[in-house]
Parts: sequence; C-alpha cells; structure tokens
Amino acid sequence: MSEELAFIDQLRGLPLHPGARGLNDDAAVLEIGGETLVITHDMMAEGVHWLPGTDEADIAHKLVATNLSDLAAKGAEPIGALLAFGLDDPLYNKRFAHWVGKALKKYDMPLLGGDTIAAGKRVVGMTAIGRATHTPVPARSGASPGENIWLCGHIGDAMIGHGVLKGAMASVFMQNNTRVTLDPYFTARFLRPEPLLAQGQALAPQVSAMMDVSDGLLLDAMRMAEASDVTLALSYETMPFSPQFLASLDGNQLDVKTDFRMTKEAAMRWGDDYALLFTAPPSVQPPVEAVRIGTVERAGKHRVTVDGNPPADDEPLGYQHRR
Amino acid sequence: MSEELAFIDQLRGLPLHPGARGLNDDAAVLEIGGETLVITHDMMAEGVHWLPGTDEADIAHKLVATNLSDLAAKGAEPIGALLAFGLDDPLYNKRFAHWVGKALKKYDMPLLGGDTIAAGKRVVGMTAIGRATHTPVPARSGASPGENIWLCGHIGDAMIGHGVLKGAMASVFMQNNTRVTLDPYFTARFLRPEPLLAQGQALAPQVSAMMDVSDGLLLDAMRMAEASDVTLALSYETMPFSPQFLASLDGNQLDVKTDFRMTKEAAMRWGDDYALLFTAPPSVQPPVEAVRIGTVERAGKHRVTVDGNPPADDEPLGYQHRR
Repeated sequence: MSEELAFIDQLRGLPLHPGARGLNDDAAVLEIGGETLVITHDMMAEGVHWLPGTDEADIAHKLVATNLSDLAAKGAEPIGALLAFGLDDPLYNKRFAHWVGKALKKYDMPLLGGDTIAAGKRVVGMTAIGRATHTPVPARSGASPGENIWLCGHIGDAMIGHGVLKGAMASVFMQNNTRVTLDPYFTARFLRPEPLLAQGQALAPQVSAMMDVSDGLLLDAMRMAEASDVTLALSYETMPFSPQFLASLDGNQLDVKTDFRMTKEAAMRWGDDYALLFTAPPSVQPPVEAVRIGTVERAGKHRVTVDGNPPADDEPLGYQHRR
Repeated sequence: MSEELAFIDQLRGLPLHPGARGLNDDAAVLEIGGETLVITHDMMAEGVHWLPGTDEADIAHKLVATNLSDLAAKGAEPIGALLAFGLDDPLYNKRFAHWVGKALKKYDMPLLGGDTIAAGKRVVGMTAIGRATHTPVPARSGASPGENIWLCGHIGDAMIGHGVLKGAMASVFMQNNTRVTLDPYFTARFLRPEPLLAQGQALAPQVSAMMDVSDGLLLDAMRMAEASDVTLALSYETMPFSPQFLASLDGNQLDVKTDFRMTKEAAMRWGDDYALLFTAPPSVQPPVEAVRIGTVERAGKHRVTVDGNPPADDEPLGYQHRR
C-alpha cells in the first residue's frame, strides 16, 4: 500500500463528518441552511506538481483548475476560494498573486480568504467552495451493474505535454522525414487544464456515479469500482484520445531522448487531463459530448478490466504520492 | 512592508467575495441559505511554526487549535475540517494521523476531507468550517472611540515555552540561589494552546470588534485599529500576565543561554497564546473572565499607544512571515 493510501486509510478511523463520505470522494458535501455545499482542498508543491522553472501563471492556473475540476465532478458551481501560499522571492509572490487573480476571475470564483506563510518551500493550497446545482450530489459510489461507463474529455494529452516540458521528449518530431514542431496544444493541456464545470452541471442529474480523472484513468476507475463495489469493464478501442494525440502517434517517429513511453496504454495510467468519468443507466444519452468506454459489471475477481483482462501489473495504475 | 503584507495587499486587488471582508479578518463569513458559516485556513511548516523534533501530537494539536482560535474569535462553533498533509516517513504520518484525530475529537470537529501530497517538506494545513452562533459576526473592524479594550486570556506564556523549547532559555532557573525547574506549564502553553471557543461564543453578542492574538498583541492591536480606523490606547499596567509568568519574572535570575529576552515588553510582541482581543461599549461587562487593557480613541498620529506613547520601533510589533 502506498504511503498516501495508508495515511488516508488511517484517517478513515478518525471522527468523520457524514459529508466526508467516508473519504471515498474528492470533495466533501455539506448540507447547511437549505443549501448543499461542495468543498474541496488541493495542495501542490514544486517538483511534485510542477517542474522547477514553471511560469507562475501556469502554477496559479493549475491550482485553481484542479480544485474546480473537483467541483465539476460534483456538478457544483463555484462560490469562493481560500488560498494557502508559501512565500518565496518577491517576484514569484507578485506574479503568483497576479495570475491567481486572473484564474479566479476566469472561472468566476472570488477569493474568500486564506493564509500566507514562509514555508521554506514553494507550496500552495486552495480550498474551493461550491454550491451543488443538483442533489443528491454525484459520488464515486453509485455505479450499478448493467450501466454504461462514459468519459467526457480526452486522456493522454497532458502526458505528452509533461513529457515535452520535462525534456523527456523532444518538442520536435520526425514526420515523413520532416522535422515537425510539436503543437503547443499538448503543453497547454498539461499546464492549463480546463475544469469541465458546465459539463459536470449538465451531467449531475443524469449520472449514477461521477469523478474527475486526476491521477490516471485506470487508477481512478479502480477507485470508483471500489466505492461502488462493482467491476468497471473498459474497452480499449473506445478510449477517447484527441485527434492531436492520435496524429502524434500515427506514422510518426518520435525524437525520444529517454525511455519516456508515449503510448495509449501509458495514457490510461496518466492523470492531469481532468476528464470526467461517469456511469449512467443504458437509457441515458449524455447531454454533453462524451464517449462510452465500457460497462459496469457485478464485482468480479478484478475491479477494473480492459477488454476482459486486468491491466498489466508491471506498472502503477496511476499516480500516487509516495514521500 | 513585509513580504507577507505586500502579498496580502496585492490579493486585495483580486476579485474578492463580500465574505472575505476585504481580507482584513482572519476568517471568511459566508451567508448560505439561512445560515452563516465562518471559514478559515491555516498553514504550518516545520522550522517555522514548530521546531524540528517536535512531537507529532503537538503539531497536530496546534494545527487544530490555531484554526479553532479563528472560529472562536468569530463566536462560531465547529462544523468540520479539511486537512492538507505533506507526507513524510511512515512513522511521522502515522503518528500525525493518530493525534490529529485526538485533537479533532477533543473539540468536536469531525473531518470533512482534504488532500495528501508528497511535498518534500513537513507542511500541514487545515480549513476549519464553523457555524456562527451570533450575527453580525464580530470583525476586526467595529471598534469605536470611547469603548473599552479587553483581553480574554493571558499573553507571554507561550513566549517562555518557546524559549525553553528552543534552548534559548534553560528549563532551569536560579531562584534565591536554588535551582528551580521551570514549570512545564509554559511549554504546554506554546505546544498546546487552547482555543477560547466558549468564551468567543459568549462574547460575540457583546463585542464591537474581536480577533485572536496570534502574532503578538501590539501587532494584532495595530491590525484592529487599522480595520476600525481608530487608535487603541493600551495601558501597560493592566496587561494580563499569568501568575506563573509573573512569578518567573519576580525575583528570579534567569539562566539565559542566549540573548533571549523574557520581559513583559517582549511578551506584548509575541503571539501563540491565542487570547481574544475585543472592544465593547463602556456599559458592557464581559460575560467571561477578561481584563480591561485600554480605551479606544479617535484615530490619532499612532494606531496603537502604550501609556500614551507609541511602542518602541526598534523591534517588530509582532510576528510576520518573511521568506
């Protein structure tokens, strides 16, 4: 068990609020004064969530976007945010404040407060508070055998973007013996993910279970399967990759500097695209663009299968924090 | 201007929620449905908020207590908390989870959720959500000329406790030429501050302004004076020190290892005791134990005076985060 899972497992033994949903969800659901709030907190650190040298504009955007993606998965609309900020040099502080303002403005989420400390490390956190637009608020649990599994959004683009930024992949391809500069589309997908707020709100009344794919499709599908006590049977062929992703694979020879693997299989174990994974009864035709990627089955030997087989266990299913 | 102040000042230019109260308060006030929520976030890091080697039990307690102190200053009762946790070695993680549970249980604040990351640094954060027991919720602003200034709780004890722990002060005194071991009372006051929740709730309907003293009485009084646009005229003689604090000063010769100053003046620039500073009209006799420490005056040349004079400016008024 990873240290992250072990820690969360231990927290489950603590006094939990009913709105914590057993810590099996990415956001808490708090009923108060006739309203239902959705509350989430995300923390990010340099070297873990962003590469040293990353523009403060990208850091700030990602902090806001990842929190909003949790609200999106609950069909919530933003109310406000609290910012936790570890001070660094004056230019970094100033640029971060500027850009976090831009991001908050973009998504119409005003600042409620927060805390600023000298942390001795570039670390940031955000608590986002939203209002549920539909109750019951979608959870990871709720998927039933016989339902369809859907994905709204693409997977894999952020993986390529990260590879380019890290220098593990060159930003230049060889295509038909011609050098082709990789589309900045990919790095933008990693640096500036778009929370699917409108899609989440449209989906909330229709879905039986929903979550955002932040740590990798296979890992997050596993979490949904466990929370719902079912098996998610995925179909490899239907995985929604972007045209850009497919074009990059198709007939190209990558100028690969390291052993960074850019494959469809790898993309299924990569997060950061913030697609929405959801299940719904067969009668439901999603009101937003989405691709059907499988069927919910009774809990079987494996929580997640791809074309009937468990995912290869030679690599992690997705991203988990170690130490 | 300190980097912390500069950063917060910049945040004031961002889109703010009305509940942010212009970022002039330690907690946000969110009216939702028919209820009023009080929301606060505190972040702590090793080497800044606690000394390396500090027991995880103390770290966890302090994280919970400092957040609850913000709720106390607003007269709120706890609803729940979100935890942000930077993973470290397994024993640290395990002990922290255990003790944060104890602290949450003690104050009847269940866990709502949170986030766990590998931060590469021992850093923790908590968002506490409370329900206001009285509206309007007390603010830093609201103090008017002619009102009395009160303090509920003591100042200075945590300063001594910190000095002992840091080794800047020995834990052994010379008293009348006899070695006397310093009362563990002081270290407990630094490591295990008690949020004045019941007091804050009793005071909320009576006060014109209230805040907790976390960064030093003079600095926090300055903040209240600025938010209220008044001058806080404090009286040195009435400062509420604990009997233990006074006894330690009285006739003792400190076995001081460094130039750590343990004086009443220094105590007025030290936080961590989490006393409640509040103002109220002359007709109000506080319903809880409190000491009158001054009078609110029309905004004068100096925001804060002690016995009519501005505090000496050779040292900071309190604790501010640099970098």
